[in-house]
Amino acid sequence: MKAEEALRKISEERPLVHHLTNYVTVNLVANTTLSVGALPVMAHAHEEVEEMVSLASALVVNIGTLDPRFVEAALLAGKRANEMGIPVALDPVGAGATTFRTKTAERLLSDLSVAAVCGNAGEIATLAGLAAEVRGVESLAGDAKEAAAKAAGSLDVTVAATGETDYVSDGEHTLVVSNGHPLMGRVVGSGCASTAVVGIFAAAGGAELETVAHALAYFGRSGEVAALGAEGGGTFEPRLLDALAKLAEDPGGVDDAARVGEATG
Amino acid sequence: MKAEEALRKISEERPLVHHLTNYVTVNLVANTTLSVGALPVMAHAHEEVEEMVSLASALVVNIGTLDPRFVEAALLAGKRANEMGIPVALDPVGAGATTFRTKTAERLLSDLSVAAVCGNAGEIATLAGLAAEVRGVESLAGDAKEAAAKAAGSLDVTVAATGETDYVSDGEHTLVVSNGHPLMGRVVGSGCASTAVVGIFAAAGGAELETVAHALAYFGRSGEVAALGAEGGGTFEPRLLDALAKLAEDPGGVDDAARVGEATG
Amino acid sequence: MKAEEALRKISEERPLVHHLTNYVTVNLVANTTLSVGALPVMAHAHEEVEEMVSLASALVVNIGTLDPRFVEAALLAGKRANEMGIPVALDPVGAGATTFRTKTAERLLSDLSVAAVCGNAGEIATLAGLAAEVRGVESLAGDAKEAAAKAAGSLDVTVAATGETDYVSDGEHTLVVSNGHPLMGRVVGSGCASTAVVGIFAAAGGAELETVAHALAYFGRSGEVAALGAEGGGTFEPRLLDALAKLAEDPGGVDDAARVGEATG
Repeated sequence: MKAEEALRKISEERPLVHHLTNYVTVNLVANTTLSVGALPVMAHAHEEVEEMVSLASALVVNIGTLDPRFVEAALLAGKRANEMGIPVALDPVGAGATTFRTKTAERLLSDLSVAAVCGNAGEIATLAGLAAEVRGVESLAGDAKEAAAKAAGSLDVTVAATGETDYVSDGEHTLVVSNGHPLMGRVVGSGCASTAVVGIFAAAGGAELETVAHALAYFGRSGEVAALGAEGGGTFEPRLLDALAKLAEDPGGVDDAARVGEATG
Repeated sequence: MKAEEALRKISEERPLVHHLTNYVTVNLVANTTLSVGALPVMAHAHEEVEEMVSLASALVVNIGTLDPRFVEAALLAGKRANEMGIPVALDPVGAGATTFRTKTAERLLSDLSVAAVCGNAGEIATLAGLAAEVRGVESLAGDAKEAAAKAAGSLDVTVAATGETDYVSDGEHTLVVSNGHPLMGRVVGSGCASTAVVGIFAAAGGAELETVAHALAYFGRSGEVAALGAEGGGTFEPRLLDALAKLAEDPGGVDDAARVGEATG
Repeated sequence: MKAEEALRKISEERPLVHHLTNYVTVNLVANTTLSVGALPVMAHAHEEVEEMVSLASALVVNIGTLDPRFVEAALLAGKRANEMGIPVALDPVGAGATTFRTKTAERLLSDLSVAAVCGNAGEIATLAGLAAEVRGVESLAGDAKEAAAKAAGSLDVTVAATGETDYVSDGEHTLVVSNGHPLMGRVVGSGCASTAVVGIFAAAGGAELETVAHALAYFGRSGEVAALGAEGGGTFEPRLLDALAKLAEDPGGVDDAARVGEATG
């Protein structure tokens, strides 16, 4: 499903999207969700997380500030999401940086049925078993295309390695998405927000290769629009939310602006 | 007490307002508190929460991302606030969405003396024992006026059901507040921020019907001012903080702009 | 080291800075770190905090929303930082307001080797054993210069008492930094952000008296730049991030704009 169709469906259905996410970028993730046209909810208590997921149309798990209680909540939420048949999107923040993050990402992928994994090149390379240079939660190098394709093949899910250029693979085919703007790298949480957009699109249209690629193209296109008039990452961030909302409310032209193609070479 | 008098008092006294709140919108709540002219403090550790509340002039409890340790902290804080005779404002975020939220809101209302309850129509309807459609933390329908009046009567506190139009009731009289702007619904946490404003006004002037209504009128009026020049929820949010501060520093005219009346029908 | 040299070094090295910080201002702290040219990482789980610190070039501890598990994480992180010889910057938020905060700040200072302590006048006075008026996490009065000098002498670390005017002391000499803008006091977390900048500068140039003073001068200068065109604390905050990034990317002239001098009297 391309972005125009997905955005119109989101606007009609207003899906509730449950986030188990980190406390650094949670506000941006929530406002991104609202801007795209969905309803965000954050709840982590073991006493209620399954009941809240039962009301949702998608689950987004982001391990940015994980701890054991968070992991337990993510497993409870993910199992309930699997029972309900709603898509689960995973952002394996910092996989490759510490053993705890790598093992947690692997455990979530093994215990749950995940529909899409979105991370930076280093995180995805780690999950693909490739060498990666990860510093903290930033990826510094690596072949993102190879990482996405290899991880998608071995994990059997749609995988997006995001960065200046995004690569999305289902293991057989790999798409390249070249929308976006350098200011997106100047805002903490733009990766988290892009995973949220993938989760929201998955609520409307599933997590097939094309849908994930067009979710990222729409997100990148919003960044292009937001950059006009921004003077840095600070003034860019609120403009990004405005642009996401503007394109979501009037999605005509979004597919034309998408730069999605087959990855070659 | 109307807004001009309350804002002048807040400016003179700079009350410390203690927040036990959620991690999604905590930054907006803190900046709202500062913008209105009060001093925000957030502390949740059982080791210090009572001592910190002892320094405060009001307590605002928001259950947006509750868990058992949070509930225990809220009870400790609330009991200390009651001993000191400072007002407690409660935002029962998501009451009606999960059993844990509904039961927690009910427990806080039964174990503590709460001065004002502010929530969306679905949350307030839940506390009033009325049927409500709540999805996650968003209210989708319901008669807000009836909910506010019924909840105020049965709980014996001032109740505000906020939304496009706000209804404030003490069980005998119900006021309608029609200030505000649609962009307020495009910012995650505008409800949390409005409850914070009610708590700050309560620190200065108590939580009588009129004071709560005029707190919401001032908040809504700030939204009207902020909307000029905003291009979406993203650029609206910082402008809302600017507007709250501008009107707090120079409150002349705020009461004239208030659209507060008796609810009829 | 002055700011131009420090900023050029940060730009070349892109140091990873680990933050154990509060959930109120964590997003501003992360975006500040990125804007200055460093890479932020936040991780608190006892399972990984030492491993993550092992990748970092500085550690910033901010006790704004502490609890016992946070304190334990800070001690684990701080000991690892000490083993590695990377600088630790401490923001003793609310020391003097509650016993738990005062004792925690004292414990961190006694159990760890801290390179720089940055706080408001009341917090620093508390650590210096002077009388202080602290309300919540705001300082309302006190002689900041005396507090900085006395605390630096007794704790044997570089100490900054920040406010409208900043005082930085190593116990022998005290510098006064008079850059800044009143709007910085209208943003929750500007103090947390300034401590982060001190930690980042320490990663590049250590925490000697001059380096800490010029970190604060650069931060204050960024505030002066950001204030142009801001209409309040709300619109000022994103502009502050833009200004930090702009001056970090092109630091020529930053030292000329610094108002750093010997404190007298």
